[in-house]
Amino acid sequence: MVKAPKVALLLTGNELMSGDTVDSNSALIARALAGCSLQVVEKATVGDNLDLLRSTLSRLAKTYDAIIINGGLGPTQDDLTAEVVASLVDGGKPIENQEARQHVEQWCAARNIKANQANLKQAYLPRGSEIVPNPVGSAVGFACDLYRALVIATPGVPSELEAMLGDVVHRVVQRLGGSQAHLLRLQTFGIGESTVQQIVKETMPDWPWEVELGFRASMPQLELKLAVETDQQRDALAFCEQKLMNAFGDHILGTGDVTLAGELQRILREQGKTITAAESCTGGHIAAMITAEAGSSAVFGGGFVTYSNAMKQQMLGVDPETLNAHGAVSEPVVREMLAGALAHSGADIGIAVSGIAGPGGGTPDKPVGTVWIAWGTAEDTRCRRICVTGSRKLFQTLVSAACLDLVRRQLLDLPPEAHYFQRQAQ
Amino acid sequence: MVKAPKVALLLTGNELMSGDTVDSNSALIARALAGCSLQVVEKATVGDNLDLLRSTLSRLAKTYDAIIINGGLGPTQDDLTAEVVASLVDGGKPIENQEARQHVEQWCAARNIKANQANLKQAYLPRGSEIVPNPVGSAVGFACDLYRALVIATPGVPSELEAMLGDVVHRVVQRLGGSQAHLLRLQTFGIGESTVQQIVKETMPDWPWEVELGFRASMPQLELKLAVETDQQRDALAFCEQKLMNAFGDHILGTGDVTLAGELQRILREQGKTITAAESCTGGHIAAMITAEAGSSAVFGGGFVTYSNAMKQQMLGVDPETLNAHGAVSEPVVREMLAGALAHSGADIGIAVSGIAGPGGGTPDKPVGTVWIAWGTAEDTRCRRICVTGSRKLFQTLVSAACLDLVRRQLLDLPPEAHYFQRQAQ
Repeated sequence: MVKAPKVALLLTGNELMSGDTVDSNSALIARALAGCSLQVVEKATVGDNLDLLRSTLSRLAKTYDAIIINGGLGPTQDDLTAEVVASLVDGGKPIENQEARQHVEQWCAARNIKANQANLKQAYLPRGSEIVPNPVGSAVGFACDLYRALVIATPGVPSELEAMLGDVVHRVVQRLGGSQAHLLRLQTFGIGESTVQQIVKETMPDWPWEVELGFRASMPQLELKLAVETDQQRDALAFCEQKLMNAFGDHILGTGDVTLAGELQRILREQGKTITAAESCTGGHIAAMITAEAGSSAVFGGGFVTYSNAMKQQMLGVDPETLNAHGAVSEPVVREMLAGALAHSGADIGIAVSGIAGPGGGTPDKPVGTVWIAWGTAEDTRCRRICVTGSRKLFQTLVSAACLDLVRRQLLDLPPEAHYFQRQAQ
Repeated sequence: MVKAPKVALLLTGNELMSGDTVDSNSALIARALAGCSLQVVEKATVGDNLDLLRSTLSRLAKTYDAIIINGGLGPTQDDLTAEVVASLVDGGKPIENQEARQHVEQWCAARNIKANQANLKQAYLPRGSEIVPNPVGSAVGFACDLYRALVIATPGVPSELEAMLGDVVHRVVQRLGGSQAHLLRLQTFGIGESTVQQIVKETMPDWPWEVELGFRASMPQLELKLAVETDQQRDALAFCEQKLMNAFGDHILGTGDVTLAGELQRILREQGKTITAAESCTGGHIAAMITAEAGSSAVFGGGFVTYSNAMKQQMLGVDPETLNAHGAVSEPVVREMLAGALAHSGADIGIAVSGIAGPGGGTPDKPVGTVWIAWGTAEDTRCRRICVTGSRKLFQTLVSAACLDLVRRQLLDLPPEAHYFQRQAQ
């Protein structure tokens, strides 16, 4: 059996050592490599210190097959990556690279500025390097050999790294092999990792061994990842996708990077419908989620943030008698809120929500976390009480997402009972 | 001169290598240590692999004065920290620690479950360890000596680490020295790091060398950090605080963890006033920022999300003639939006905003990023055009924050010209 190639990451920057910056770049790189079945075995993180960078890179290059360096390509004195690599490659200094110089000059010209010495420093690379083009920033990356390892230097600015990542991974795969694994990412809402694992284990004894099931939580969604390593295993991948669709189809929003609000917008556009929201406890978060998606003006004309009882009456025409008799967190009130929002906005479908976000405001009868939601059309209004505990931030995020999901389910004629409701009904 | 003590972090967990988890724990630890003038020199991150953990910890313990290990304390087979440390300390296996066993049993009893073998595994620690109590989880941390270094093992669950961090840092300081520095954190909005640095450099030649100025960006705010190491230097700290207040006082929201919306709520409460918002391009983000703060119902009755022209007329009474003559992104329209929002909500002060978030919708006259803001009271309405470029998310965050800041400035009688406006006026 061939030994699996080993990749290490070397992350540099004083801001990573002081704790002022949380490093998300290494996760980005690791996920991209994992997509080609390449594994990051070690991550070393050190500040902008010449000696420590040298000794760390030297150790890594003697141990691993490829090292991806992130950071230290900028124009300032603190940016040491090219100098460190050059000193190990041939004991010398970085030398001017014509392609890199051209890139810097073009980058400056496009911005109508004259390249200064700091800019031009970025054209100096270790002898024998190939440049890795940077489509968005002034600093090119570079690739070279050190001992028997491949070294690739990338910029620390996340948007620049992201733009270059395909190229970087391609170079590593070319050198080390690694398979372009087939990866399917399914975005879900309303089920948890342990539930999925349990149901797969209990009801799918025929799950093929070659299909790996992984998870990534990104509140309020959960990403399911199905991966196989070879072309021959693609049938098994499709088999498992179908299994998951059968078991959790109504919880699956779509593939890739789709979001709940993005998918809802797609469905509304397809059906030629518009939506509105009347929000009490979510305080604008539902409208903010909808309008965070580009193109939302096609499906959303406006929404009502009615935090106080007075505003529920004034903006939505909720009857003061209803508020007195049942309280603001009640089925009759959210029904009237929805009716008012639909009437005043002319939208086809809507959401109304009233609850107790906390930390204050709970009663024995209606504890913190209690939420009433009404959703649907004037002719087909639905209503439900749920309870969401956790921090105020978690409460507002989850309740807003649940509201969007309820409308999605109604529009698609899916069962209204997502797992987050079933669990509460038990 | 005494050599400064050196601390390294060893982070473990397969989820850190696959990219499925972004490590924020190491930043938490580094910031806590920096508060005592202790510097993290190297971070090593490896998966749950016995041999690699052993060789990495051995190398670090030979190089640094203290190593904080994070992760690998859980109940499963993958959790290897105690085993790794024990094998290096005395070549043996972890042994049962009575205090740790008591903790696990009490933790289980409090949850009405019987401690099983997996739970009890967490009571086995390297010989000679002291436990580091975990007030929130079942796994205690531990501290022991390895070669000449202090090793402290901490859990990977962020809430547990956070609860134990004071204790951990105290142990490191006791061992290595380090000073309990005095740290002052100032939250600001509307100025950038480079601007502050430049103004400090150009206008404060008498800045005392012993006061360190640091920065932490947390969009949309920028935190300024002033630190000194001894009690005797506290006067110098106060001197610098006064300097910064004189130079940037109107940009400083307060100390500690204060937020823009939190500070605005405090001012409104103090003045007995209420606020409302009429939002077009921010689509609910302003209301969401206000209501994300607990206690917001005391100052916020409701808001209007008027994305379409029809809703601007319907909800706020904007004149269709004004919309036709000037377009939705214009001074007359935001003025009418504000007047309508104040009249319909009865709030004392308000915000109205209309702009082009992009990526579509720009024109040569009004490019993507153009925003008109009206703010103030019915008697004292102010108006301003700004331009904010960047992603849709950045646009909505920055514009919403700028709106809250403008009201804050008006309520406090501060200059309306924050740095973000001055720059655009140039």
